[in-house]
Amino acid sequence: MDEPEVNDGLISDSKEAQLKNLLYLKDLHKDEIIQLLDQSDHFLKSNQPDEFVELLKNQSIASLFFEPSTRTSASFQLAAKRLGAETIMIDEKTSSATKGESVLDTIKNLEAMGVRGFIIRTGDKNLFAPLIDNVGSNTSLISAGEASISHPTQGLLDLLTIRQQKSSFDHLKVVIMGDISHSRVARSLTEGLNILNAANITLISPEEFKPNMANFPNTDFEKDPNKGLSDADVVVALRVQKERIESCENGLSLDQYSKIYQLSQDKLELCKPDAIVMHPGPMNRGVEISNEVADGKQSVILKQVENGVAIRMAVLTEILKQ
Amino acid sequence: MDEPEVNDGLISDSKEAQLKNLLYLKDLHKDEIIQLLDQSDHFLKSNQPDEFVELLKNQSIASLFFEPSTRTSASFQLAAKRLGAETIMIDEKTSSATKGESVLDTIKNLEAMGVRGFIIRTGDKNLFAPLIDNVGSNTSLISAGEASISHPTQGLLDLLTIRQQKSSFDHLKVVIMGDISHSRVARSLTEGLNILNAANITLISPEEFKPNMANFPNTDFEKDPNKGLSDADVVVALRVQKERIESCENGLSLDQYSKIYQLSQDKLELCKPDAIVMHPGPMNRGVEISNEVADGKQSVILKQVENGVAIRMAVLTEILKQ
Amino acid sequence: MDEPEVNDGLISDSKEAQLKNLLYLKDLHKDEIIQLLDQSDHFLKSNQPDEFVELLKNQSIASLFFEPSTRTSASFQLAAKRLGAETIMIDEKTSSATKGESVLDTIKNLEAMGVRGFIIRTGDKNLFAPLIDNVGSNTSLISAGEASISHPTQGLLDLLTIRQQKSSFDHLKVVIMGDISHSRVARSLTEGLNILNAANITLISPEEFKPNMANFPNTDFEKDPNKGLSDADVVVALRVQKERIESCENGLSLDQYSKIYQLSQDKLELCKPDAIVMHPGPMNRGVEISNEVADGKQSVILKQVENGVAIRMAVLTEILKQ
Repeated sequence: MDEPEVNDGLISDSKEAQLKNLLYLKDLHKDEIIQLLDQSDHFLKSNQPDEFVELLKNQSIASLFFEPSTRTSASFQLAAKRLGAETIMIDEKTSSATKGESVLDTIKNLEAMGVRGFIIRTGDKNLFAPLIDNVGSNTSLISAGEASISHPTQGLLDLLTIRQQKSSFDHLKVVIMGDISHSRVARSLTEGLNILNAANITLISPEEFKPNMANFPNTDFEKDPNKGLSDADVVVALRVQKERIESCENGLSLDQYSKIYQLSQDKLELCKPDAIVMHPGPMNRGVEISNEVADGKQSVILKQVENGVAIRMAVLTEILKQ
Repeated sequence: MDEPEVNDGLISDSKEAQLKNLLYLKDLHKDEIIQLLDQSDHFLKSNQPDEFVELLKNQSIASLFFEPSTRTSASFQLAAKRLGAETIMIDEKTSSATKGESVLDTIKNLEAMGVRGFIIRTGDKNLFAPLIDNVGSNTSLISAGEASISHPTQGLLDLLTIRQQKSSFDHLKVVIMGDISHSRVARSLTEGLNILNAANITLISPEEFKPNMANFPNTDFEKDPNKGLSDADVVVALRVQKERIESCENGLSLDQYSKIYQLSQDKLELCKPDAIVMHPGPMNRGVEISNEVADGKQSVILKQVENGVAIRMAVLTEILKQ
Repeated sequence: MDEPEVNDGLISDSKEAQLKNLLYLKDLHKDEIIQLLDQSDHFLKSNQPDEFVELLKNQSIASLFFEPSTRTSASFQLAAKRLGAETIMIDEKTSSATKGESVLDTIKNLEAMGVRGFIIRTGDKNLFAPLIDNVGSNTSLISAGEASISHPTQGLLDLLTIRQQKSSFDHLKVVIMGDISHSRVARSLTEGLNILNAANITLISPEEFKPNMANFPNTDFEKDPNKGLSDADVVVALRVQKERIESCENGLSLDQYSKIYQLSQDKLELCKPDAIVMHPGPMNRGVEISNEVADGKQSVILKQVENGVAIRMAVLTEILKQ
């Protein structure tokens, strides 16, 4: 990892143009990512939260979650409130979607009401492209998760957590294990790690969950955890949906999956002694991760959650500050 | 239109008694409507939104939506927040309605908790009458849409939008086209236009959607858009529910309906060259309005939405100020 | 009733350790209950609500309601807002519960986001015990209703209402009538009355709804309202679920139940002339209580609701102040 630039604790003006949207980490420059991580660290370390409430005062943000979510939604809500922004929650079930209004029309309407930032979570991989082309020049879209394609704030909070624990990305081996092919978390983290020049990224999964490797540049794929985990500095266990395991063509059972791919204490010992354990949550305890490891000394899973609020505060500030 | 009274930018004391409820525009005096429009313009033009947050500080408002709504709900929420009021959202699905509690008891309880303003949207045309008679003397009811009877804040924002675009109501021809019989929007707008002495109001719809004309005094009815649209200054296209078209007795098809009653560029050219296009939203694009017209130069549809927040701020301030 | 300690209007430092959780009134000392009632009275009498907004500024509270609720949820929300706390509403339907995450993991995650107070309503009598043992040392759990076991803030607001109306608990006869066996309200109120040394607590219900008397120490049970109501100073009518009556083994009908156990004007006259009528709401008017009594001069039902916000403000302040 390059030395992070010194940040004096102020929201410094970026030398680049201000970030307009946040959809894919791969669209960010290295400097932009480091600036967001620095700003997040500043929020975490400050003991003057009263000041933050002025940062987005009088700003209106809408939260459009087309997929259920507790933690990401709560994290964004808390981030927005701590910055003094007002948040409108648009809930699929009560929205005009039931009247056939398009998401673009919903956004256009909220724009007209003075909403500038839209936090959107969707299972539809074709939602964002037409939106980007049609929203106003002063409107920002922030992905809170997009199909199996992208989850940029999760990627950023993962990078922040790694940076806090490890002195450098330069020699770092990061292992991501589980259902890679459906994981927007794996994809965004990989994008971010590549930008920060992580030394080695290894993906571990059964053949069924092997992704299109074109979406995971500069990574190694390995079916065998015993090989892949060796010398890892960071292990990210991914949530796996039980239904997906059981619908695998060759009839992989949940038991078999857990036996081979669960991050247990045994497997953790294949990694470096100071390896850290991460998980994007929510966890299927006893499936992709054991209780012992989830709650163990090497786990930084709740630290990730804490960092999540700070990252979202940094993202909202960077995008919506005026 | 009479000359609007000069408004010095302050919330002036009304000469009349303070407005207690807002259910039907026909209950308002001309002066009261003009005062609300003036106050809305003031909110729109002010560059000191920080001051508004003091207007309803420490006031509690409850939002009871018994019909789904994105835009009206969001518009009221943003209006309340910008005035500094706290808003409680009561959602039919999670409310004590599931325990058989009456809406009146819900209101009585919220009154006891210190809530003074109730924003209510309902499909039940018999809801408001018993409420009005039984709520406390200090309690205000604000309709956010009532069955096919009334939608007063929509009517007000329509009037504001027209006033901003046209110099006078005196010689104005306003055309409302679509499913008039089920439209609370058409009814409230007609009530307001009559109070402001609009010169001509023409309703256009197929025979099936012709309303009880007693509810639309001083209006002309016309089945043929080619006749009715002629010389119009304002055209309001109304949302039509596909199910309602398809259930028409004489078997009007959606295709036939759109062909005859869709506000297309061709039909818009029957109006005056500077006619404005309005729609209460959400739009069924390609049914009652074409994309070309909805997004065209003559459309003020998003301006209506912007005005909606200001109108609701004016209504809440007028009713709840102390 | 002992003389309440003089309270000078400030949030005084408790001599005891600060209250960490509020799950069961029986766990409180008499002094703690009196302190909460005094603080509530202070909130009710103050004409400087602007000051309260500083009490929990920058505090984050999560509201987890696993049972539907209008009034308790609204009451807690308003209490939190008036203290300046930010509240996150976690709704079962949209939460990660749909992804199999445990409530403990949800809480752990929200803790990591900086949430210190959790307001939880649940129908599951086994939820709280494991939570208490596993949440952080700085985390507080506040019951907003637990199965048929406990509803401590309802108990407190009932005590406050009684104290406001009656000069002393020492000679007080309190009657609770209705479906006692399923009533968390009856249980918490009984716990509180016992701590405050109420002279007599009488439970009235049909045999089918007689509770396990071990959960109701120092109470008398009586099937016949004509006997039990005699000389009562306070009557609490409990909500009864129609389904429960109709599923009674001996085939008690709703009509029969209402005839015998409805608090009607006739029955109210069996009590002392200055008896007060209470009900936790929502009411089944015409079942457990008549309209005449619910809305009559002796009813303090809406006063209970008003007191509810003050009690919840006192509880949140006492538990979350720093």
